[in-house]
Amino acid sequence: MAVSLPIAELRTPCLLLDEEKMRRNIEVMRDGLKRLGVPLRPHVKTAKCIEAARAMVEGQPGGITVSTLAEADFFLRHGFTDILYAVGIAPGRLPQVAELASRGACMSIILDSVEAARAVADFTAPTGVEIGVFIEIDSGGHRAGVDCRDPVLIEIARALAPARSARLQGVLVHAGQSYDCADTECIAQVAEEERRQAVAAAEMLRASGFDAPIVSVGSTPTATFARSLEGVSEVRAGVYVFHDLVMAGLGVCTIKDIAMSVLTTVIGSSAGKVVVNAGWTALSRDRGTSSHAVDQFYGLVCDADGTPLGDLVVRETNQEHGVIGRRDGSPFEASRFPVGTRLRILPNHACATATMHDRFQVLRDGVVMDEWKRCGGW
Amino acid sequence: MAVSLPIAELRTPCLLLDEEKMRRNIEVMRDGLKRLGVPLRPHVKTAKCIEAARAMVEGQPGGITVSTLAEADFFLRHGFTDILYAVGIAPGRLPQVAELASRGACMSIILDSVEAARAVADFTAPTGVEIGVFIEIDSGGHRAGVDCRDPVLIEIARALAPARSARLQGVLVHAGQSYDCADTECIAQVAEEERRQAVAAAEMLRASGFDAPIVSVGSTPTATFARSLEGVSEVRAGVYVFHDLVMAGLGVCTIKDIAMSVLTTVIGSSAGKVVVNAGWTALSRDRGTSSHAVDQFYGLVCDADGTPLGDLVVRETNQEHGVIGRRDGSPFEASRFPVGTRLRILPNHACATATMHDRFQVLRDGVVMDEWKRCGGW
Repeated sequence: MAVSLPIAELRTPCLLLDEEKMRRNIEVMRDGLKRLGVPLRPHVKTAKCIEAARAMVEGQPGGITVSTLAEADFFLRHGFTDILYAVGIAPGRLPQVAELASRGACMSIILDSVEAARAVADFTAPTGVEIGVFIEIDSGGHRAGVDCRDPVLIEIARALAPARSARLQGVLVHAGQSYDCADTECIAQVAEEERRQAVAAAEMLRASGFDAPIVSVGSTPTATFARSLEGVSEVRAGVYVFHDLVMAGLGVCTIKDIAMSVLTTVIGSSAGKVVVNAGWTALSRDRGTSSHAVDQFYGLVCDADGTPLGDLVVRETNQEHGVIGRRDGSPFEASRFPVGTRLRILPNHACATATMHDRFQVLRDGVVMDEWKRCGGW
Repeated sequence: MAVSLPIAELRTPCLLLDEEKMRRNIEVMRDGLKRLGVPLRPHVKTAKCIEAARAMVEGQPGGITVSTLAEADFFLRHGFTDILYAVGIAPGRLPQVAELASRGACMSIILDSVEAARAVADFTAPTGVEIGVFIEIDSGGHRAGVDCRDPVLIEIARALAPARSARLQGVLVHAGQSYDCADTECIAQVAEEERRQAVAAAEMLRASGFDAPIVSVGSTPTATFARSLEGVSEVRAGVYVFHDLVMAGLGVCTIKDIAMSVLTTVIGSSAGKVVVNAGWTALSRDRGTSSHAVDQFYGLVCDADGTPLGDLVVRETNQEHGVIGRRDGSPFEASRFPVGTRLRILPNHACATATMHDRFQVLRDGVVMDEWKRCGGW
């Protein structure tokens, strides 16, 4: 929906997206991976938005990564057909995967156990539905996945073999531990471990006679600081599209690169404290920078044009209230922000903040020029 | 939408509501306030659901409290006309308040500053739109509101006076500090302070010649443990409708009273760790019990029928992953929960968890008998 509206006329709270910054972030990631010679399969779980995803796949093979089957359905309805659902499959959701495949999606799923592989084989064998399968590898994040040296890899591949329509595509790893790095050298090392272990796992499968053509790795930090992607077929990354305070804290971007913010209005202003109408329903409860050198609390406060206001952060959130104060809690001149003042809040975690909203107000040259819908649910 | 579906057929994650428990929670609150002789104006920000709100106002005058104008619009469209919007008004949202009033809503708003009162007076004077106004009092929560002894109360009332259509209704207080109490005796004391200060503020206004007929107080904890509500006109409370682990930790309810849960499926199971498909998009990032004697992490794990499984909690959440473990982190037999197992997670904070969902799957006798929509946005 194309519009042309001054920010001052938007109802608050709402989610702003600076399209120019978004496009620059996309270019930076694209150029970086081009140098390493590996295509990108963008993760659309941050954007959940057709227009943003179209910009992300430009110049790439066109495949996307999703975090829910609701995203898969939404993007399929808008012409995206190569879809990797990168959360371990719940067997009860296989009928929806099949339904998406029957509508023309080239669907891939991931799993990390023999029992899940058997459930997939049992489901696909009678139906003949074509589903790609990746085995998830744990390169140190310890959330999901199997160790790249664990012989269970072969057992999982064997459990899939009877179901010829469930094609083993290869291996997939997400080095979530890159978010715990203190510096970019650490991220580069995590990226190398992610690459090395994924390639090793694929080679183990190939040495046992399994076709495992694809090695899929990625996260925004490792995609940004990887020095080599030898043996890697594709990189997944998502949050780079908007960036956020966590990425800035890791050195992956600067504060100026953050393309997404929450527009809010001052509803109370008294000695040393300013209350705005953006609480956790607008900002999320994410405190991703709480362990960083610079704690941004619930978000960094900017003026209505997006320029940070020193060390002002959202110190507390309730359902519909945010309380603004200085990072160190010391007094500040609240009278600078009378009731009605508009402010922007930069998010700790773009995925979490965006999830609280069903649309973006898209800014070009500081004017709202479009409204882009987001999908939600599962 | 009436249905009849075994829980086993629901797609996960999704939000379950045990209707019988909800109705019992509503009865308990109603009976308690009846003994104190004060009517309830339920806060619908937890439920955001027509069917639940109808049960909450049964036997009450019928007015509701909302936290967003989107809720006001949603409930007005379904026949609720007496609506108190209990978040400090952003002047830019006054046209929406007027629009709701023009559609038949008896709208009240709240504010806590002379500048906001002037903005309301300036808006209503030319339009003649009828809006009720409460002055917010801070009884110790230190989020919003003015001190009950502060003469600014009179200045605020004076600033409203020129706008005859903006009627001063009285004072409103929410003792949010009741959530920080260590025991129920503390809550009872906070309730008494809430009552005493609200009544004192109203009396100050009345002594200065202002009509301030209504004294509105409340929160679920203080509404539960108040010993007297003398001078109080109405009580607001919302989370009691479902209750949650924060309320159980405060002694306001028991774990068995919690009517809301998230249904999830095991997607990975290995030594000492079980991964489910409910991450923070389904549970929220709320860690409301982190300072309690019993830390419930991201939620208490129950079997598919809703019975707690000892000390298993959701220890970590990512966007679509929850990691289950024992509260103290010690090993447990993960093999009890193979891939595909269904579990229910009780929420820390019902408002926050419900916000992540657009509907409830309503259970009667353990069977899904209905689907109730929720409203979102602002």
